[in-house]
Amino acid sequence: MEQSFLAYLRGRCRSLPQVAVGIGDDAAVIDSSSGQTIACTDQIIEGVDFVSGEHSLHDVGYKAMAINLSDIAAMGAIPKSALVTLSLPKSNATRIAGDVYEGILEAATEFQVAIAGGDISTYDGPLAISVTLLGEVPTGSAWLRSGAQVDDALLISGAVGGSLRGRHLRPKARIELANRLRELVQVTAAIDISDGLSLDMDRLLAKSGVGVELDIDTIPIHEDAIAMSETSGRTPFEHAWSDGEDFELIVTMSQADADKLAEEDLGVKLTQIGRTTSRTGLWKRENGRHERLAPQGYVHK
Amino acid sequence: MEQSFLAYLRGRCRSLPQVAVGIGDDAAVIDSSSGQTIACTDQIIEGVDFVSGEHSLHDVGYKAMAINLSDIAAMGAIPKSALVTLSLPKSNATRIAGDVYEGILEAATEFQVAIAGGDISTYDGPLAISVTLLGEVPTGSAWLRSGAQVDDALLISGAVGGSLRGRHLRPKARIELANRLRELVQVTAAIDISDGLSLDMDRLLAKSGVGVELDIDTIPIHEDAIAMSETSGRTPFEHAWSDGEDFELIVTMSQADADKLAEEDLGVKLTQIGRTTSRTGLWKRENGRHERLAPQGYVHK
Repeated sequence: MEQSFLAYLRGRCRSLPQVAVGIGDDAAVIDSSSGQTIACTDQIIEGVDFVSGEHSLHDVGYKAMAINLSDIAAMGAIPKSALVTLSLPKSNATRIAGDVYEGILEAATEFQVAIAGGDISTYDGPLAISVTLLGEVPTGSAWLRSGAQVDDALLISGAVGGSLRGRHLRPKARIELANRLRELVQVTAAIDISDGLSLDMDRLLAKSGVGVELDIDTIPIHEDAIAMSETSGRTPFEHAWSDGEDFELIVTMSQADADKLAEEDLGVKLTQIGRTTSRTGLWKRENGRHERLAPQGYVHK
Repeated sequence: MEQSFLAYLRGRCRSLPQVAVGIGDDAAVIDSSSGQTIACTDQIIEGVDFVSGEHSLHDVGYKAMAINLSDIAAMGAIPKSALVTLSLPKSNATRIAGDVYEGILEAATEFQVAIAGGDISTYDGPLAISVTLLGEVPTGSAWLRSGAQVDDALLISGAVGGSLRGRHLRPKARIELANRLRELVQVTAAIDISDGLSLDMDRLLAKSGVGVELDIDTIPIHEDAIAMSETSGRTPFEHAWSDGEDFELIVTMSQADADKLAEEDLGVKLTQIGRTTSRTGLWKRENGRHERLAPQGYVHK
């Protein structure tokens, strides 16, 4: 229901001057008399996003922070503080809260985020962790999904596919990469890959009103995608194309800026996989012909 | 578990310069290069904080906003934007989300709060609504619990007790009162009454390191407290003293400031009920003797 309900909400919410960017980007941009705050919130719930028996609560706590850190990175922002809400099953509530918080605090320490507040309840339900993360953009403006121009280079960080083999629990939020890019070039649009490379790329392109011509062979396929393909009946490319929870960044910038980055050490590989076009949609060129590709990924129910 | 776990958390969380006031006040005060943000988060859960059959979802949505608005008021701040996280039971998720949001949007419109973002999940659990509210203090500093001085006047807004008769679902967040007070006087400390007049007053006093000598007869008892006393076996005063969810403000200020307010129309009654003392605790004077009173209220498990 999420997508259709969000559409309803966007219609129902009056726009007020204090929110420069509201529902529909990786995070909100909130104007105040004294500056801009970047704010996002994302929750994970036992039975929906993780399974307690299989996943350590420490990892789950880390992930609850990391998925929000990834959204902050996708805005080109720096995380500053977090508010954490825990809904705890009644039995073993204190132990569970302690274990989850060890992971939350590990991520907070790693990214120098202050836990500014929160709420804790016990109830008849599964463990749910909701994190609101606040950040700021030190210089320039926040990166939106809507800023890509025709003829921009489209690049992705790291390698994608097969994160469910375990990587999805310890995603490396690309805060440091975002920092470096903000210093070096002018990013025109950005999004993080939470629901699948092609699906999130399609969202960025749709918001920007452009399409992309992909050089399919350049898409960096993670070794986890290859490993999964051995038993999944799907090709490594299919995993890379549509698996969710990579938490890598998709960014666009002028081709000149992209070329400039070739000589830089960014700490993580950034690979150009295509070029934006005025023709909307995802395209690949093969034997001189353009073929349209369907975005695929995890669609929230 | 909440109080003891929060104590553990306060110990475990490194203090970072960006958080001027963290866990342990009505809201956090977050410093940034460009100013201060006031941030709080509070959730309500079916079966813990409300009962779906008895309470309309519209009211529940309103309340989820109002309890956070009350925290913002207790900081002397103005609310600006909200992030809303819904955890929805799988059956009728869309209808429930719609009903809850009508109440959320009513409160948002009333207080000119922008819904900046949020998250929605469906799961095997009860309806849970978590709101993070961001605000700012237009002039001066945020009101903390810790600022009361010896010999300050202690005042409360409205009348207290018996809110469970229905008032607790539609609390009037005292944003407008906080605005007026900020213009007129210097509030030294503030808290909102969520767990009971005496319990929350005790928290403010403990943080300030002072006590209070109360003029018990001046405590404004709500007519709901009188009505409840007819069947509860408790006196109206007992209801006023310990019932939770009044969402009125307790504020302290110099006696000169309190006297100044007598001539002002504040839109809601503000009643002085005592005066702070260097001797800690809650005291009443009767027949020339001081008698210590025990704080009572709703203690979160």
